[in-house]
Amino acid sequence: MLKEIAGGITAPKGFKTAGVKAGIKRSGKEDVAVIFSEVPAAVGAVFTQNAMAAAPVVVSRRAAAKGTVRAIVVNSGCANACTGNQGLADAQTMAHIAATLLGIEDHEVIVSSTGIIGQYLPMGKIAAGIENAVAKLSVEGYEDTVLAIMTTDTFAKTCTYEFSLGGKTVRIAGIAKGAGMIHPNMATMLAYITTDAAIVPAVLQNALSKANDLSFNMITVDGDTSTNDTVAVLANGLAGNDTIDSEQHPDYQQFFAALKQVCIFLAKKVVEDGEGATKLLEIQVKNAQNWEDAKTAAMAVAKSPLVKTAFFGEDPNWGRILCAVGYSGAQVIPEKISLAIGGVQIVKEGMGCDYPADSLKKVMADREIIVTVDLAAGNADAVVWTCDLSYEYVKINGEYHT
Amino acid sequence: MLKEIAGGITAPKGFKTAGVKAGIKRSGKEDVAVIFSEVPAAVGAVFTQNAMAAAPVVVSRRAAAKGTVRAIVVNSGCANACTGNQGLADAQTMAHIAATLLGIEDHEVIVSSTGIIGQYLPMGKIAAGIENAVAKLSVEGYEDTVLAIMTTDTFAKTCTYEFSLGGKTVRIAGIAKGAGMIHPNMATMLAYITTDAAIVPAVLQNALSKANDLSFNMITVDGDTSTNDTVAVLANGLAGNDTIDSEQHPDYQQFFAALKQVCIFLAKKVVEDGEGATKLLEIQVKNAQNWEDAKTAAMAVAKSPLVKTAFFGEDPNWGRILCAVGYSGAQVIPEKISLAIGGVQIVKEGMGCDYPADSLKKVMADREIIVTVDLAAGNADAVVWTCDLSYEYVKINGEYHT
Repeated sequence: MLKEIAGGITAPKGFKTAGVKAGIKRSGKEDVAVIFSEVPAAVGAVFTQNAMAAAPVVVSRRAAAKGTVRAIVVNSGCANACTGNQGLADAQTMAHIAATLLGIEDHEVIVSSTGIIGQYLPMGKIAAGIENAVAKLSVEGYEDTVLAIMTTDTFAKTCTYEFSLGGKTVRIAGIAKGAGMIHPNMATMLAYITTDAAIVPAVLQNALSKANDLSFNMITVDGDTSTNDTVAVLANGLAGNDTIDSEQHPDYQQFFAALKQVCIFLAKKVVEDGEGATKLLEIQVKNAQNWEDAKTAAMAVAKSPLVKTAFFGEDPNWGRILCAVGYSGAQVIPEKISLAIGGVQIVKEGMGCDYPADSLKKVMADREIIVTVDLAAGNADAVVWTCDLSYEYVKINGEYHT
Repeated sequence: MLKEIAGGITAPKGFKTAGVKAGIKRSGKEDVAVIFSEVPAAVGAVFTQNAMAAAPVVVSRRAAAKGTVRAIVVNSGCANACTGNQGLADAQTMAHIAATLLGIEDHEVIVSSTGIIGQYLPMGKIAAGIENAVAKLSVEGYEDTVLAIMTTDTFAKTCTYEFSLGGKTVRIAGIAKGAGMIHPNMATMLAYITTDAAIVPAVLQNALSKANDLSFNMITVDGDTSTNDTVAVLANGLAGNDTIDSEQHPDYQQFFAALKQVCIFLAKKVVEDGEGATKLLEIQVKNAQNWEDAKTAAMAVAKSPLVKTAFFGEDPNWGRILCAVGYSGAQVIPEKISLAIGGVQIVKEGMGCDYPADSLKKVMADREIIVTVDLAAGNADAVVWTCDLSYEYVKINGEYHT
């Protein structure tokens, strides 16, 4: 049972943060942030699958593999991607500067960058920014930190909860930015989650991987996987709960549920803020042969430009949805598929059926719409979130010039 | 050596055709066509991989499997897809009506439909249309037939060549419509190729499958695979060349080259006419580990909405192209990749390099642009064709209402 509470990523005990203006973003807004845990924190992290993984991802993978970190340092305005050996050295230097100032080891720092691909980090500005941020670290800094990781985001994405683990009150909070590679050269989805729960690194990593598979890996804006995607969770144990040391621990399921809820909340916010989006679409595929099939079918519907433009036009074009299910590669029996939009059934056993036109019209005008595809082929379900495709998307991505 | 000649799909000996207005299309334009070979013709055919394959595809697969056909009957305005058993019966009836009027067997008829998904064929109009078309069959009918298969196409796609096989003059011609599932509910890419070459069905089928893999399977407009896609080639042998009975036959390579050229010509025309397209993009991936990798990387670039909008905006955004190569799944070594647009190199060994800005600006303003990605990982190449993504695409697909 999660309870929403005030504060942000510093609501969990022992975390401090700061976001500062370092002059990297053209807009002059906050662009460097540091998140710090007063004590070593177990870390779980997942990174982009893109073969062109950016330098900070390479550096952070190594840090996360050690199981414990103390800090996250991040900049926006420059992605430090496609930057070769120089980029790798710069990412290491970023970690080193933060580590030195914080009195910790380089490998206790997760590094992220987001922004333009193919440019070197302005290391002078980065160094000054990190120094400034470390000096300003506080429990109150969380709002500036959200600003510092934003690029084309139109609103801040953050959530904070508390819940009980074995009688102890535990806090968990998260922030996120971006959606896939939604912006011209502005790579990246980043999400950072803090908690004062006590949990060992290996179990935390597994929990994050599973939660990630059901949240950030289930969203798509434009199908482009960025070079810099990073989701990291830091758990510093200051809540004093009995340490969760295996998936069989009595508190594991409750912790996992909380982590999953934070991930899904942030993932949906990312899609809601997708470039040019006017609608948030939840694609539910039910009764597939297995989960992979359910995800494959849901993702095909979510990625189809024809489906996305139809929702932008508020047209319940079921032919496009069934067509996408058909080419997805999922095992389907066409004559068994049913389809509902906002609870209004419009396809029964593979063919259009009569439906209340007024109800459907009302559903199509909503900002959040649930599409339910029932494959009647098994009992596995999956949910994917996406947004519609509007003129604004073309404008943002077509009129931008490098 | 192919020579362009006058005429259309009836330029090969022994073919007649007609396209007529049957009142199925709302526009009142030509919407039923029949293509007829005076003698049995070897057939090769490839169909959509969509699991929701439309009724005419199911019927035509069976016909093509027999190796010999005499006629193709096609309508536009209604796709006869997602129509269950009734749809299957209607497609069979379509073949039966044509067969009866032409004095041939039902299984000697390939049937196609293109248009709105989820509606039954208006069988009265279809029957009258087929009767009218059969009555009008002629060598001159080819221009009306091109019109009859068009839906949202803005221009006719046709080519006609002659070449020599073992001293005999052989003709080959083709027509096509659509691009993937480019239109709201207007499913389908269709292409029909006629030739008077003599070739046995099994070899013809293999030649078509290979040519298709290098042409129609290498184009993408919006990534949506329609329920009705069909490419069929009819070879009636009236040119009198020595029958090509194996891939080792001395004339096979020449025939294959001609067929491939026809397929590539038509495939490029389909992309050029993609909805809202202002540019034709040729994505060349060179020196991949194998052909599959080359295709995978090229297709990822071609499908990326970020790449497509960048070209619409005439912005040489190489970060988006490398990012797409990176997430494609192809084996790549980031530090080895080079990239050129219109012959102007802009990425060398994974990083941006200096380039003549004026030359590149000029290239980006062209209507046809070649993008060359060199993976330096092997020696396999692939070419994919696509178009840009414009406001017009969103308008066509977002403002259409079912």
